[in-house]
Amino acid sequence: MVRHFEGVPKLEDFKLIENELPPLNDGELLLQSEFWSVDPYMRPYSVQALKDGDVMMGTQVARVVESKNLALAVGDYYVARAGWTTRFISDGKELRALPSNWPESLSRSLALGSVGMPGVTAYIGLKQICDPKPGEVLLVNSAAGAVGTIVGQIAKIKGCKVVGSAGTDEKVAYLKEIGFDEAFNYKTVSSLEEALKAASPEGYDCYFENVGGKFADVALQQMKNFGRIAVCGCISMYNDSVPQTGPYAQPAILFKQLRMEGFLIFSYEDKPIYEEGQKQLLEWILEGKLKYNEHITNGFENMPAGFIGMLNGENTGKAIIKA
Amino acid sequence: MVRHFEGVPKLEDFKLIENELPPLNDGELLLQSEFWSVDPYMRPYSVQALKDGDVMMGTQVARVVESKNLALAVGDYYVARAGWTTRFISDGKELRALPSNWPESLSRSLALGSVGMPGVTAYIGLKQICDPKPGEVLLVNSAAGAVGTIVGQIAKIKGCKVVGSAGTDEKVAYLKEIGFDEAFNYKTVSSLEEALKAASPEGYDCYFENVGGKFADVALQQMKNFGRIAVCGCISMYNDSVPQTGPYAQPAILFKQLRMEGFLIFSYEDKPIYEEGQKQLLEWILEGKLKYNEHITNGFENMPAGFIGMLNGENTGKAIIKA
Repeated sequence: MVRHFEGVPKLEDFKLIENELPPLNDGELLLQSEFWSVDPYMRPYSVQALKDGDVMMGTQVARVVESKNLALAVGDYYVARAGWTTRFISDGKELRALPSNWPESLSRSLALGSVGMPGVTAYIGLKQICDPKPGEVLLVNSAAGAVGTIVGQIAKIKGCKVVGSAGTDEKVAYLKEIGFDEAFNYKTVSSLEEALKAASPEGYDCYFENVGGKFADVALQQMKNFGRIAVCGCISMYNDSVPQTGPYAQPAILFKQLRMEGFLIFSYEDKPIYEEGQKQLLEWILEGKLKYNEHITNGFENMPAGFIGMLNGENTGKAIIKA
Repeated sequence: MVRHFEGVPKLEDFKLIENELPPLNDGELLLQSEFWSVDPYMRPYSVQALKDGDVMMGTQVARVVESKNLALAVGDYYVARAGWTTRFISDGKELRALPSNWPESLSRSLALGSVGMPGVTAYIGLKQICDPKPGEVLLVNSAAGAVGTIVGQIAKIKGCKVVGSAGTDEKVAYLKEIGFDEAFNYKTVSSLEEALKAASPEGYDCYFENVGGKFADVALQQMKNFGRIAVCGCISMYNDSVPQTGPYAQPAILFKQLRMEGFLIFSYEDKPIYEEGQKQLLEWILEGKLKYNEHITNGFENMPAGFIGMLNGENTGKAIIKA
C-alpha cells in the first residue's frame, strides 16, 4: 500500500514489490499463498492499522513449502493473516488449520468465504444478535456479498422469511436462486421504502446491516417492535472523507424498542463459537443446504483491481484472488 | 388537550373543563386524585395516542372516595392512569396498589417517582440493558431528572463511577450531593467533548440515554469497546417539527461493538421485574441509600405550567403536581 486511501481506493495506491526472504530459523515455516481474500473491512481497517508503504492487510490460504517446525508439515494448508504476499515466513502461531474433515473435492478457497471469516460472521451475527425465530422476517442488504448470501440462507434454514437487497439484476436473480423469498435491486427500485414494504408489508424482525447510511434510515422505519439489528458493516460509508449525516436512529430505536448491536468477527476468533460456526457451515455445505458462489480474479498482480471491484460491488458471492 | 402540540407545548394548548360524572355502576369506584405525574413521555405519546379535545394522558395517585366494588375499599390509594382529571370512575382493573409495606411517613407522591414509573424505568434500563459491573463508568444525561437521579444512584450502589450531565449549576450541585462522582452543566461547558473526557478520560462502559440528538453524537465517540447504551428517552428531540439530523451512529456502534437498545417502561408493567424494582427501590429509600427530590407544583389548574416547566428542565428530581 503506497499511501492511505482517500475516497475510493485507486490502482495507484498499490505497488507490487519483490523482496528476498531470509533463510528460515528453527521453528519457522515458509508458506506459499494459493488464494487471497479481499473483504470490505480492509478499507476502514487499513486506515487505522497501516502506515504508508506497509504491506496491505489480508488473509490467505497458504501451503507449507518448507518447515523448520516439527509440528507443522510441508504440504499442509492453513489460513494465515500475512497480508498481500505470495510467500511469507511464519512461526506457526497465527495459522488456522482448515477443518479436519475438509473434503478433497471442495476448493480450499472456501476457507476464506462460506466456511471462513465471512461465513462465520454471518453465523455469529445471526446467532448472537439477530436470534431469528421461525416465521420471523429478516432483511439483509449487500445480500449477494460474501456475508449476505450466507446470512440469508442460514435464516432460511432457521425458518424465516428472507428479504435481500443487492445492486444488480443478476445478483437479485442469484438471490432468488439460492432461496431468498424476496429480493430487489436497490439501484433501480423507484423507492426503497416501497420496495421494503412490498417485500414485507408487516415489517422486519431482524435486520442484518452491511451497508449503513441512507439504506439504514429507511430500513429502521420498517422494523417491527422489539426488532434486532446486527451491525456487521457500513460499506456505503467506508469511502467517505466527510462523515455522512442523516436523521437520528434513536427515536426509532426507542419507540420500537429495537436492539442495535455492532460486532467484529475478530473479537470471536479465539472463542468456541468460531469453530462451532465453521463446523456447522461445512456440514450445511456438504449436505447441500448452503449454496455458495465465488467471484475469482486470477493473478496476484490483480489483487488491487479485485479489491476495488469488490468495494464497487462487482462480486456475486465471495471475492477471491487466485494465485 | 385542546389541540396537538406543535413544537414546545403552550398554555393555550390546554383548557380546564368541568363535567358532571355519572352515578357509579356495580363494580365501579370513584377516585379522587391527590398527586399527578408529569413526564417527558407525554410529549411524544400524546401526539400518537390522543386526538384534539381528548383528556390529556397521565397518571396519578388517587384515593377511593366511593366504592361499588367489594374488592376495593374507600380510603385506599392507588396509582391510576386516568389522565389529567381530579375525579374519575374506574372499574378497578387498571389500578396499581402501592407496595404493601408503604410507610405512613413516606409521601405517596413517591409512587409516581422514585418508587414508581421513573424509578422502575431506571432500575429496568440498568438491569436489562446497561448491566453495569463494579468499577465500570456510567454516563447519564438529564441526570437531575426523575429517572436520571435514580440511574446514577443505583449505579453507585452497583459499584460504578457515575458521571452526570444537567442544565443548571444547582442541578449539578444536587448531583454531587447525592453521590455522583462527576457532574457538569452541559449548557455552560465550553465543549461537551472535553467535559466528557475530563470526567472520564478512559471513556464510558454504560450510557443511559435520556436526551438524544447532539449530546448522543459526542457521547457515542467516548464509549469504550463493548459499551451498552440504554435508550430511555430523547427529550432534546420531542419538540422537533422537523427531525434533527447528525452523523450516523452505526460506525461507532460497529467499530466499538456497542449495544444500543431502546426500551419503554410500558412493556414491563405486567412483568415480575416491575414489582421487583418497586420493592428494591422502596427498600433502598427506607435504608437511606437512595435520595430523592421532588419539584412540586401546587394546584390541578397549574398542571399545564408544571408540564411545560418539566419539558424545559425546571425540575430537579421528579416533577409532581399536588392537588
